[in-house]
Amino acid sequence: MNNIAILGASGYTGAELVRLIATHPDMKIKALGADRKAGLEYGSVFPHLRHLDLPVLKKIEEIDFSNIDLVFCGLPHATSQRVILALPDHLKIVDLSADFRLRDPAEYKKWYGGDHAALELQKTAVYGLTEFHRKEIKTARLVAGTGCNAITGLLPILPLLHEKIIDPDQIIIDLATGVSGAGRSAKEAMLHSEVSEGFHAYAIASHRHLGEFDQEFSKAAGQPVMVSFTPHLLPQNRGILATIYVQGDAEQIHSTLAKRYTQEPFVYVLPFGQAPATRHVRGSNYCHIGVVSDRRSGRTIVFSALDNLTKGSSGQAIQNANLMLGLDEAAGLQLAPLFP
Amino acid sequence: MNNIAILGASGYTGAELVRLIATHPDMKIKALGADRKAGLEYGSVFPHLRHLDLPVLKKIEEIDFSNIDLVFCGLPHATSQRVILALPDHLKIVDLSADFRLRDPAEYKKWYGGDHAALELQKTAVYGLTEFHRKEIKTARLVAGTGCNAITGLLPILPLLHEKIIDPDQIIIDLATGVSGAGRSAKEAMLHSEVSEGFHAYAIASHRHLGEFDQEFSKAAGQPVMVSFTPHLLPQNRGILATIYVQGDAEQIHSTLAKRYTQEPFVYVLPFGQAPATRHVRGSNYCHIGVVSDRRSGRTIVFSALDNLTKGSSGQAIQNANLMLGLDEAAGLQLAPLFP
Amino acid sequence: MNNIAILGASGYTGAELVRLIATHPDMKIKALGADRKAGLEYGSVFPHLRHLDLPVLKKIEEIDFSNIDLVFCGLPHATSQRVILALPDHLKIVDLSADFRLRDPAEYKKWYGGDHAALELQKTAVYGLTEFHRKEIKTARLVAGTGCNAITGLLPILPLLHEKIIDPDQIIIDLATGVSGAGRSAKEAMLHSEVSEGFHAYAIASHRHLGEFDQEFSKAAGQPVMVSFTPHLLPQNRGILATIYVQGDAEQIHSTLAKRYTQEPFVYVLPFGQAPATRHVRGSNYCHIGVVSDRRSGRTIVFSALDNLTKGSSGQAIQNANLMLGLDEAAGLQLAPLFP
Amino acid sequence: MNNIAILGASGYTGAELVRLIATHPDMKIKALGADRKAGLEYGSVFPHLRHLDLPVLKKIEEIDFSNIDLVFCGLPHATSQRVILALPDHLKIVDLSADFRLRDPAEYKKWYGGDHAALELQKTAVYGLTEFHRKEIKTARLVAGTGCNAITGLLPILPLLHEKIIDPDQIIIDLATGVSGAGRSAKEAMLHSEVSEGFHAYAIASHRHLGEFDQEFSKAAGQPVMVSFTPHLLPQNRGILATIYVQGDAEQIHSTLAKRYTQEPFVYVLPFGQAPATRHVRGSNYCHIGVVSDRRSGRTIVFSALDNLTKGSSGQAIQNANLMLGLDEAAGLQLAPLFP
Repeated sequence: MNNIAILGASGYTGAELVRLIATHPDMKIKALGADRKAGLEYGSVFPHLRHLDLPVLKKIEEIDFSNIDLVFCGLPHATSQRVILALPDHLKIVDLSADFRLRDPAEYKKWYGGDHAALELQKTAVYGLTEFHRKEIKTARLVAGTGCNAITGLLPILPLLHEKIIDPDQIIIDLATGVSGAGRSAKEAMLHSEVSEGFHAYAIASHRHLGEFDQEFSKAAGQPVMVSFTPHLLPQNRGILATIYVQGDAEQIHSTLAKRYTQEPFVYVLPFGQAPATRHVRGSNYCHIGVVSDRRSGRTIVFSALDNLTKGSSGQAIQNANLMLGLDEAAGLQLAPLFP
Repeated sequence: MNNIAILGASGYTGAELVRLIATHPDMKIKALGADRKAGLEYGSVFPHLRHLDLPVLKKIEEIDFSNIDLVFCGLPHATSQRVILALPDHLKIVDLSADFRLRDPAEYKKWYGGDHAALELQKTAVYGLTEFHRKEIKTARLVAGTGCNAITGLLPILPLLHEKIIDPDQIIIDLATGVSGAGRSAKEAMLHSEVSEGFHAYAIASHRHLGEFDQEFSKAAGQPVMVSFTPHLLPQNRGILATIYVQGDAEQIHSTLAKRYTQEPFVYVLPFGQAPATRHVRGSNYCHIGVVSDRRSGRTIVFSALDNLTKGSSGQAIQNANLMLGLDEAAGLQLAPLFP
Repeated sequence: MNNIAILGASGYTGAELVRLIATHPDMKIKALGADRKAGLEYGSVFPHLRHLDLPVLKKIEEIDFSNIDLVFCGLPHATSQRVILALPDHLKIVDLSADFRLRDPAEYKKWYGGDHAALELQKTAVYGLTEFHRKEIKTARLVAGTGCNAITGLLPILPLLHEKIIDPDQIIIDLATGVSGAGRSAKEAMLHSEVSEGFHAYAIASHRHLGEFDQEFSKAAGQPVMVSFTPHLLPQNRGILATIYVQGDAEQIHSTLAKRYTQEPFVYVLPFGQAPATRHVRGSNYCHIGVVSDRRSGRTIVFSALDNLTKGSSGQAIQNANLMLGLDEAAGLQLAPLFP
Repeated sequence: MNNIAILGASGYTGAELVRLIATHPDMKIKALGADRKAGLEYGSVFPHLRHLDLPVLKKIEEIDFSNIDLVFCGLPHATSQRVILALPDHLKIVDLSADFRLRDPAEYKKWYGGDHAALELQKTAVYGLTEFHRKEIKTARLVAGTGCNAITGLLPILPLLHEKIIDPDQIIIDLATGVSGAGRSAKEAMLHSEVSEGFHAYAIASHRHLGEFDQEFSKAAGQPVMVSFTPHLLPQNRGILATIYVQGDAEQIHSTLAKRYTQEPFVYVLPFGQAPATRHVRGSNYCHIGVVSDRRSGRTIVFSALDNLTKGSSGQAIQNANLMLGLDEAAGLQLAPLFP
C-alpha cells in the first residue's frame, strides 16, 4: 500500500483524486492539504465523499510527509512551484498545475507572465502525457500533468505529426469544455445563471494551453508548429470535445491512430466515420477518438472526447502515479463512465 | 412618457427591469445606478441588452433625479433603506429589496438582524402584492415589492384564509426556486458546477420570507398564522413552484380561487385537477395556480408557479409602478412566456 | 465467479447494471437480452460502455440460461411477469419491474390495472428493500426491486412507524425525481426541450408507488397507513429527493434513524439539522438522510436523497443479488458519487 | 390588422410564431392548423400560451382561408410543398420548411432525396434571408425561410465573399446548436437524459443546410464555393453559435461587416476582438457577430450567434411577413433577449 498526500484537496481536482483513490487497490490517502479550509472535515467540504474515512484538512506546513510516498499537488499555478520546491526529497510528486509543463523558461514567462521560482526543478520534470512519455514517467520524481484542453488536442494529433501524414501548417483545434475546468473558486462568469443555456468562445487564439501545443507538436513534427485554437465554454460540468480540422487523408489518419492506440488501455479509436460524445466518457479515464472525411477532398475532421477532471487531470495523475510507484498503470482507473 | 431611474441596475432584477421597460409604451429609462460597475456601458455589463440605447451606469450620488418621475430600487437589503431615505421627495419609489416589507420593526429586526434606519418611511410603505393592495398602491409614494418566494405562497393561500375555508394551523408550503433568485454576486454555492444536476433544501424553517408569510397570512385570517415553509434550490435559472398542503375541501378551494382571480390580468387558475409548471410562465408576469384533491379526504394540494425575476420581482415592480403613475396596470407586461 | 444475464439490457437500468458489474469482483455478464435492439453490439446501444468485452444483445428466447446463475430482469411492467414465469427453475432472479412488489393481487390490479399472470410466483417473491428484508432475500429465488420513489420514502419513515414515534395519519411525502426514471423510450414529455429549465408535479395523489407505501407502511405501523405523496419532475437526469413532513419529535426521530442505520453500509444519517442533496449521491448506492426541526413544535422535516438508477434500482438489485449469491453485500457497490 | 393562419402550429416553430404574434401590433391569428392534435385547445398543447385568446387547432382541410391574408407554414419537409401547392391564390405564404429554399431541383433532390412536387411554385419562391433579399421579399407571394444553421453561417460570410476579401476555398464553419431545432416529435436521441451534460457532432460534412450554403455562397462569390461544415448538438434548448475560420485580414473583415450591417435592425457587429454568446440573443430576433484575429497571420475567426427559433425561423418569418404585408419590418420583433 502506498501512502498518498493530496495538496490543494479542496478544489475539484482534489476531490476527483479522492473519489478515484477511494477504490484504488494500492493507494491510501494519509494527508489532505488545503489553505482556507484547513481544519475542516473533508466530508463537510465535499459531502459526496462523506462515507469515506479521510484525514482532516490541514495546512500544508502542518503535514508530516515522513511516511508519505507520493504527493498529488492540485494547487493554483505559481503557488505550486513554490510549494513543490520545499517538499522533502524522498517524495514522488505529480503536479496538476501548469507550473512544470513548459520546458523553456521563456515560454513559461510568455504564457504565465512571471519568472519561474523553481527553474532547476523544472528541468527535471517530465510532461505527463502518459501515452508518449511512459518510460520517463516511470523513473521521474516530478511529473507535470498536462492541461485538460492540451491533452484533448495532443492525443489525436501527435501521432499524425510524428508520421508526417498531415500538413503541420493547417491545424485548427476547435474545442468545447465543461465548466468544472474553471475550478471551484467563486466567479461571476461561472455562476449557473451565467453558464446554463448558453455557449460562447473564450481566450480565443490566446489560451495558455497553446504553450503546450507549441512545445509538443513542434517536437513531434521536428519543426515549429503553430496551431489555431478556439476554446468554448459548454453549459455542462464535465467533458471536453475537440473538433480538429486537418489536411491529410482520412483513412490514413484513421489507420494511423487506430494502430498507434491499439495497445493503450484508455484511448479508444472509434470505427471510421464515427464521432465521439463527451457524455460517453464522463467520470472515466477514457479518451474516445473519431475520424471523419470532410466533403472537401484532403480535409479530415478528427474528434476527441475526454473528461477534463479525469483523463484531463486527476485520472491522468493517478495513471502517472501508478507508473511512478511501479503499480499496474490502470489500477483504480477502470470505472466505467456514468451515463445518463 | 414617464422618466425612470433604476438603482442597483447591475443585478439581475435591474436587468429584468431594463428588459421589460425596453418595450414599455409609457416609460423611458433616464438613469441607471450601480456602485462597483459605475462608468461602464450597460451593454458591457449585460450584453443581451446591447441593442438598447441606454444611459451609462452611474454612482447613485451622481444621478440627477430632478427630471425623474419614478425610481426602481434593486439594491441589497439594508443598503436600500439608507439610499431611499436620501432620495428627493418628488420621486415615487418601488423598492425591490426586503427593507420595507415588514410593518412591525420588531419583525424586521427578528428576520434581518439589525435596526431599521428609516422607520418613519417604513410606516408609509405599501406592501407590493398588487392583487391585494391595488388601491393603496395607486396613491403610495413608496411600494415595497414582495419576496419572490413570498408572493408564490401568498397568491394561492390568502383568499383561502380570508374566506376561512382552510385550517390556518395546517399549512405546509413546500417550494422550489431557480438560481437567479440568489443574484449575480459570485458565490461558490451558486456555481454551475455546484447547482446543475442537483436538488436540495435550504434555509429550512428559517427563510426570511417567513416574515412576510406571518404578516400577510395573519392579517388575512384575523389570527396568528404560522406556516411551515421549506424552500429548495432547482438546477434552473428562473421559476418558482410552490406545492402547498392544506386542510380544506378541494372543490371549494378551487372555486374560491377561480372566482377571486377571474378579473386579475396576471393570475390564472387552471381547470380543477391540473397543476402548473414553471416553464409555462418563464419570462412572463403570469402566475398559474392549480388545485388537486389529495387521496386523503380533507387534504388538498394547491400549486402556484411564477417567474421569480418577473412576477416575483421586476414584473411585479412595473405592475405597481404602472398603478402609481396612473397607467394601464398591464402596460409593458403582456409578453408571452418563453418556451422552450 | 457468478454468471449473470441481464434481460431488458437496452434500457437505462440495464446499462446501469452493466456499468456497476463492470468492476464487480464476483460477477461476470454472460448474456444481454433485448427485444427491438437484438443483434446489436452493446457498445453501439450504449457507447459509454464500449470499452467492455460484452456479449451481443440477443432476443430472450435465444439466450442459453443453462450456465447462468442469476438473472436481472429490467423489462417493462406486465412483460416482466410473463418472461420470469418461463425462466428455468435453477435461476435466481432479481426483477426491477413493478410486477412482484405488491403482495395483494387486488392491490396489484388496483394500481397496475390488469390481472397478474404469475400469481403463484408472486407469492414467493421477496420485496427487495434490503435493509428490512435482508434475511428473506438471502434465501429467495425471486426478489422484487422496490420502486425508486418508494425506497426514497420508505428508508427514512419505516423505522419511525415501527417505533411508533410519528403520527401515521400525518405523513406527507413531497418528492422530486430526475428524468432517467422515465426510461429511454421516446416520449414528448421527456424531451430536453420539455424538461430542462422547468419543474412541475405529476401523478399527484395517484402515483403507482403509493401501493408500495401502503403495503410497507401499514405493515410497519400495524395499522392502515395512507400517506400523501406528490412527485415532481426535476430538470436533471439522476437523483431523488424526498422532503417528508411528519408529526413527531425531531431529536427523537433523528436518534431513532441514526441508531437504526448505524450498521448499514449504504444508508447515512446526517448530523441533526443537516439536509442532503441529490448531487452528493449521484452514481452511487448511498442514501443520505437528514432530520430538521420545523418552527412549528411537533412537526419535523425528514429528507432522503438517493440516485434513482443506483440505490433506487440497479445498485439495489446488485446489493440483493450479492446476498442471494452469498457474496459480500457491498461487493461492486462502493463507487464514490460523481461530483461535480 | 392582417389576418394570419399558422399551419403546423403544434410544433415549436408554430408556438414561437404564436408567442411573437401575441404582441404584434398589426397581426391577428385567425386559424391554427395541426394534424394529430386537431380539435385541441392551443393552451392544452402549449400551456405557456394559455392566457391568449386563440382559435382551436383544426385540420388544414377544415380551415377557411377566405379571410386570411398570410399563412405561416411550419410543416415537415415534403409535406409542406404539397400543402402549399393546394392553398388559394390570394394567400401570401411564408414557408418555414426546407421545401422551397433550393433553386435547383437537382440540388433539392440531392439533399432531400426525392422529386419536388411543386416545381413551378419553387421557381417563384424567394429565399428568406431578409438582409439580402429584402426587395424581392416585399413583392413575393411565397418566401422560403432559411435553415436555422444556414442563416447563422450566411450572415457573417456572405458580405466577405461578395467583397472578395476572404479565400472562398478556405472556409470552415464549426457550429453548435440547441435542441429545440430538432422539433417536438419524440426521438430517443433528443431525450433530456441523452442530451443534457453532453456534447457531440452530428451530420458531419453531410448536413442538409450545406445545400443552402452552396447556393448562396456560390452566388455571392461568383464561383462555386464549397465550405466545410460541422454541426454539434448543445445541451441547451435555444441558440446557435457559429465559429467560422477564414483566410483574410481580420480588421478588413470587421470593418466590412460593420459597414454592411450598420443599418440593419437585427444584426449587430460587436467591437473588434469581441465574441458573441447564444445566451445574449435568446428569445430575440437579434444576431450578434464578432471578429477576432487568429495568432496565425492571415487567419481570422468570425463568430455569429442567434436564436434558432427566432431569427433562425419564426422571428425571421415574421420579419419577412412584415415586408410582404407592407408593415414596419421590425414590428412585433423588438423583444429584448431573455437572460438569465
